[in-house]
Amino acid sequence: MKTITIIGSGQMGSALAFPARENGNEVRLVGTHLDREIIEACRATNRHPKFEYDFPEGVSFYQFEDVDEAIKGADFIICGVSSFGVEWFGSEVMPRIPEETPIISVTKGLQNLPDGSLIPYPEVWRRMLAEHGLKRNLNAIGGPCTSYELVFHDQTEVSYCGEDMDTLRMIRSAMATDYYHISLTRDVMGVESAVALKNAYALGVALTVGLNQKAHGIDSKLHYNSQAAVFGQATREMAKSLAIQGADDLNNLCVGVGDLYVTVYGGRTRLIGTLLGRGLSIDEALAQLQGVTLESLVVSKRVAEAFRVKASKGEIDLADFPLLCHIDDIISNGAPVDIPWEKFTYVDE
Amino acid sequence: MKTITIIGSGQMGSALAFPARENGNEVRLVGTHLDREIIEACRATNRHPKFEYDFPEGVSFYQFEDVDEAIKGADFIICGVSSFGVEWFGSEVMPRIPEETPIISVTKGLQNLPDGSLIPYPEVWRRMLAEHGLKRNLNAIGGPCTSYELVFHDQTEVSYCGEDMDTLRMIRSAMATDYYHISLTRDVMGVESAVALKNAYALGVALTVGLNQKAHGIDSKLHYNSQAAVFGQATREMAKSLAIQGADDLNNLCVGVGDLYVTVYGGRTRLIGTLLGRGLSIDEALAQLQGVTLESLVVSKRVAEAFRVKASKGEIDLADFPLLCHIDDIISNGAPVDIPWEKFTYVDE
Repeated sequence: MKTITIIGSGQMGSALAFPARENGNEVRLVGTHLDREIIEACRATNRHPKFEYDFPEGVSFYQFEDVDEAIKGADFIICGVSSFGVEWFGSEVMPRIPEETPIISVTKGLQNLPDGSLIPYPEVWRRMLAEHGLKRNLNAIGGPCTSYELVFHDQTEVSYCGEDMDTLRMIRSAMATDYYHISLTRDVMGVESAVALKNAYALGVALTVGLNQKAHGIDSKLHYNSQAAVFGQATREMAKSLAIQGADDLNNLCVGVGDLYVTVYGGRTRLIGTLLGRGLSIDEALAQLQGVTLESLVVSKRVAEAFRVKASKGEIDLADFPLLCHIDDIISNGAPVDIPWEKFTYVDE
Repeated sequence: MKTITIIGSGQMGSALAFPARENGNEVRLVGTHLDREIIEACRATNRHPKFEYDFPEGVSFYQFEDVDEAIKGADFIICGVSSFGVEWFGSEVMPRIPEETPIISVTKGLQNLPDGSLIPYPEVWRRMLAEHGLKRNLNAIGGPCTSYELVFHDQTEVSYCGEDMDTLRMIRSAMATDYYHISLTRDVMGVESAVALKNAYALGVALTVGLNQKAHGIDSKLHYNSQAAVFGQATREMAKSLAIQGADDLNNLCVGVGDLYVTVYGGRTRLIGTLLGRGLSIDEALAQLQGVTLESLVVSKRVAEAFRVKASKGEIDLADFPLLCHIDDIISNGAPVDIPWEKFTYVDE
């Protein structure tokens, strides 16, 4: 039995309390300063306001002012903040965590640097901490897993990544259940790149849904040839992006493809892509989604920006990424949706 | 303008009459001996009985007794028979086609040989013809394209493959439209392997749909973590299978992944997988689908049989294919559905 402290009581962090607690671990769920009402609701009802199922009995809930108490004695910490909380977590929370306590993050995303490189959040944190002479054991979770289906106990496959296999094995033994299956890899760049990239491409698949609604009515049925065409191109561009990231590996691509599949059906990214496909401008679409965090837009812009820098240095050819470039053009420049179908074809003599 | 003769008036062959005729070509659609009523209906209504849209004006319809007349003067022939008609097409139709007239087939599948190799249908035909001293220019179509969505003019990406690029370019220029986009490649083994393999794996994804219905009711909503887990594993096994086929190429994998995506939603394969997942035996599931051709079952068995032969010779490790082996165990041995989730995980040190 381990003591597991989850910091960030959004849906994904909170969902991980289910396998963690069902395995008999002590589980402490800590809200950030933005999660005050969520923690109050969890305490009152033993249920997260966004979930349809109660937490397993025995999860403890903490407001953020008690975070030090929640961290004390933990065998590992799960970071459950969204990508918008990455800096805050690195500066406000990580220094409070003992150096020997492993941290594993569910935050998905990449940070672009001025030289065109894209680094995963564990590397972002490593650099932040190093500036203050600090060091932590940083790990991450990737793979196709929506929070509400983990809570539902739908069969789920994820990948845990980090530098130290013993740490990963310890965390896996605490977290794995008969419905939550965990691969392990030292390829942090690979897993984190794969699961960040799929956000952009899921938006691309959703564009086709909106395009068909625009042409045939919002209640028209779904069409899959066009979705599949974008899905196939997305797979090609993800594989090429992974190669650029130095992570050209089949397992990484499969994590990305699986995560793309689940994200195509997953709420916010599908919604914004569909709205854009229907013909709304990016500003109009965002207005409809007020208050909703859209990591897919952030990561799309960052990857496109990084790739433009790399292309300007002659390191990559943007012609390899017609789908990503078009998505970026839509969300960064307000371009109308006009999927470059013919650019997805190839001639292999 | 070309003269295009389509032989086999099933849904896929008939759907190709749409882009072919819309481009202004002369199009002759010939029914096989099994298609007599379809051709009568097409003549009477200018619509295929399974389609919701009329053919473009000007398509000519032929019963099979007039096939020689329909072939005469054709610039190329489209073979639209299912995999169950492959031998018949090779022995009864191909000899009637002039040697210089290219043939392009939409038939998807692989034939396993006693030594464990799997060959695509163009190769099956090449060998059949060679026995009679005959030779034909054989090409094939793969990629994510359901017939009813092609008829609907949904955006569609496919790959044409064959030995001669000039032939492929000629056919593409006759067939490509603003909604039907065509890649070209000489890698017949790659494209045909990819689109055959996805049949088995689409059935695998559908198993999860049935499993959830079994546990939570037939009207319960869809769950995507489990579908995505199988989709990711299917991608891994397809990539490894393509490598075994000597076709380890990103474009091939993307054709397969796209085709898998569309097939997961595509009628018969999804239906049988769902029924099996609900707990029906293979015999019970087949009884519910009486009369429906199930190429997914045929190709799953053939690939599994071929891989068992290769494994017995020490050429491959069946542990790389836990999903395919389980699917084969269900449909060949009547095994109950028990997806080996844990075998889909990996440890990459």
